[in-house]
Amino acid sequence: MSGPDSRSAAAIAADVRAGRTSAEQVARDALADIARRDPPLNAFTRLLPERALADARAVDAKIARGIDPGPLAGVPFAVKDLFDVAGIPTTAGAALRRDASPAARDADAITSLNEAGGVLVGTLNMDEFAYGFATDNAHFGLTRNPHDPDRIAGGSSGGSAAAVAAGLVPLSLGSDTNGSIRVPAALCGLYGLRATQGGLSRRGAFPFAASFDMVGPFARSVADMRLIFDALAGCRSADVPAEGLRVGRLEGWFRRNASEELLAGIDRIADHFGGAVPVELPEAERARAAAFLITAAEGGNLHLPDLRSRAMAYDPATRDRLLAGAMLPAATYIQAQRFRGWARDAALALFDRFDLLVAPGCPGPAPRIASATIMVEGKPVSARANLGLYTQPLTLIGLPVLSVPLARPGELPLGVQLIAAPGREDLLFAAAAALEEAGIIGFSEPVEMELSSR
Amino acid sequence: MSGPDSRSAAAIAADVRAGRTSAEQVARDALADIARRDPPLNAFTRLLPERALADARAVDAKIARGIDPGPLAGVPFAVKDLFDVAGIPTTAGAALRRDASPAARDADAITSLNEAGGVLVGTLNMDEFAYGFATDNAHFGLTRNPHDPDRIAGGSSGGSAAAVAAGLVPLSLGSDTNGSIRVPAALCGLYGLRATQGGLSRRGAFPFAASFDMVGPFARSVADMRLIFDALAGCRSADVPAEGLRVGRLEGWFRRNASEELLAGIDRIADHFGGAVPVELPEAERARAAAFLITAAEGGNLHLPDLRSRAMAYDPATRDRLLAGAMLPAATYIQAQRFRGWARDAALALFDRFDLLVAPGCPGPAPRIASATIMVEGKPVSARANLGLYTQPLTLIGLPVLSVPLARPGELPLGVQLIAAPGREDLLFAAAAALEEAGIIGFSEPVEMELSSR
Repeated sequence: MSGPDSRSAAAIAADVRAGRTSAEQVARDALADIARRDPPLNAFTRLLPERALADARAVDAKIARGIDPGPLAGVPFAVKDLFDVAGIPTTAGAALRRDASPAARDADAITSLNEAGGVLVGTLNMDEFAYGFATDNAHFGLTRNPHDPDRIAGGSSGGSAAAVAAGLVPLSLGSDTNGSIRVPAALCGLYGLRATQGGLSRRGAFPFAASFDMVGPFARSVADMRLIFDALAGCRSADVPAEGLRVGRLEGWFRRNASEELLAGIDRIADHFGGAVPVELPEAERARAAAFLITAAEGGNLHLPDLRSRAMAYDPATRDRLLAGAMLPAATYIQAQRFRGWARDAALALFDRFDLLVAPGCPGPAPRIASATIMVEGKPVSARANLGLYTQPLTLIGLPVLSVPLARPGELPLGVQLIAAPGREDLLFAAAAALEEAGIIGFSEPVEMELSSR
Repeated sequence: MSGPDSRSAAAIAADVRAGRTSAEQVARDALADIARRDPPLNAFTRLLPERALADARAVDAKIARGIDPGPLAGVPFAVKDLFDVAGIPTTAGAALRRDASPAARDADAITSLNEAGGVLVGTLNMDEFAYGFATDNAHFGLTRNPHDPDRIAGGSSGGSAAAVAAGLVPLSLGSDTNGSIRVPAALCGLYGLRATQGGLSRRGAFPFAASFDMVGPFARSVADMRLIFDALAGCRSADVPAEGLRVGRLEGWFRRNASEELLAGIDRIADHFGGAVPVELPEAERARAAAFLITAAEGGNLHLPDLRSRAMAYDPATRDRLLAGAMLPAATYIQAQRFRGWARDAALALFDRFDLLVAPGCPGPAPRIASATIMVEGKPVSARANLGLYTQPLTLIGLPVLSVPLARPGELPLGVQLIAAPGREDLLFAAAAALEEAGIIGFSEPVEMELSSR
């Protein structure tokens, strides 16, 4: 392994398909690399060497028989520990699920990547039951940020982000209910996609809040992101031009609490598209509150039987939030759902005037582990609960959002959300490709990890 | 006015269109008849003579100019006091809305009937905010059953049923959230339709529980029911044969607590179709409970601002139920909605084997006002809260249901629910027409009212 290019999914698949290497060799290298470099990060919860080597050999066998193994031929990937993997328990980051019945079959998203030639190598750490933005798990430990091991990776899909940022796998799967892909993507300097609500099968992904749960990918380049999204969606996304996009810069709630460097980065993105028009997302702060309430209530409902019978087996930070959610009054939950309908209509109207909206991903760089708080409205608040302040309003509405990393080699990552109308992931990819090409956004190799992998 | 035939909507429209009478004369007769005969019943809350005469003259003017005034030409109708009528407050049976702002425009359902030539003559009594099966309103009084003034008309659309059963108008509109059309239709011996969930516009009808609210019609014959449904739906329902219908008789929950006479009537219906196959609606009792909970929670949410600021202005029977609903835990409401999805899937599967399902409408005849209780599982329970025990499970699922009256001249009415797959109102009309033709079902003139109107 040398530069990032040779580790891209596209490059690996091309090498495997051309016979320059075998899928089995790629899998063996990846498993060895993870075993050597993951321990200080704690991104992985489980390696699956037998399955990985069997899947890799099946790809090689196809090539030997002249059968196309798919666009992800031999590409190693790993999944957040809430995807069903046939034959093992779906832990969902919870000690109380360590002895759950093994899953009977793979989650749909894993099946899609397998059918495209991908090779599953392991499972990844997360906040318990995906309830948190920190990946600080009382049972499975904390996942560190590859860009600075004294900082959190973000969550709840923190293992999925750290593994890709550290170059242990080129692609991974996470899930995003309130921002659990976009937050760690921002803090680890990756591309992370929350697709249009309902647009990808979540069958076999452990649920959290049915109104919002989405599965989705992490990648280190726009090209790799498109590869994995197309495999998950089961169709090739359209090639559309990035020229002439009407870009809006979200104001109000989305400027408050954000770092100057981040806002300057957003201006660079706006300038690339000829200057963005300032625009308000109606009632954005209330939209965040509604997403919070709906998540807590639906999560509380889902976990109520276990909360009643074995509350003490939960991670304390998760338990308290789920119990509070279960006890919300029904009238409050219903009001939040009614507001959601209003907020969606109001947001969709913006796309009469704009193709793309731009907003910060997180307020600033990854918080330090030692003081995992962020400043909101001048007060320090828990990073675990509040890092989603810019992602949650968009969750409520169900828009597709691509989190992209500002190009900041050698510095801590900062993420920006590119937002489109439902079903317009193609516009997100077109805009991101243009920005990446112009050097405004892009993944930067973690300095620490480069040193340690030499 | 003499027999029921001359008072049918079809006969009135034919007479008006042929010039045998004028719409204005029909409206004047109806207004006078209501003024004379309604007081002991208390079906009407408001007469609208100016509007009625203006609308009637507009119908007559069309006829004079050779323009088709529509299939309900000159037919008087009245509406439950929760439909917006331009220029007057939408009271919804509530004293606290007596001084509400006047509605800016008519509800869609009224507009549809006006466009078909119908003439709105007044508004009709109901349980406050439609929460009850008794039409016993603390502010607007109790509506009596035309078949026996010592008995309730049922509710919450009791005024809509009593007015049609007494022959004051041939057609009326009510609303059905949990059974508020089907229950009074059964107790007053009428045809009452709850159409497929979402199938008719409820714009301008005061809401109660958004998951279930439906507007719908009452009529005294299948022919009149089809006339008004077609006018509401804006299209002519299909003519389908009643021969060969595969009929299922709902068992379990739907046989318990029902009177012997009612079950014998259901058997006569079954025999007409060659004998019905017994079939269970899966988890019917739980479906009723889920409808109860969702209604209470959504009603509680809707009314929470007024409950906070002026709870004492509510009818006590309504206030207590709405307050309880607002305080249900969110986890309970969410569970009921999750169960609803399951119950719908399970019920829809029955229509692979059946075209029509048959079930009781209410357990027996209308309860006496003096002791408004019914026996459920051997215990007396409030009629106001429990008369919907057979209608609520179907509410949860969203199926179209036509409540039909067993033919019982000179006896208290008993109602039966005919149930079809979503969108198959045509099958309900075909089956009901065949049963009416065979003399098994049909409206019977109230003996009391015949005497009093001579």
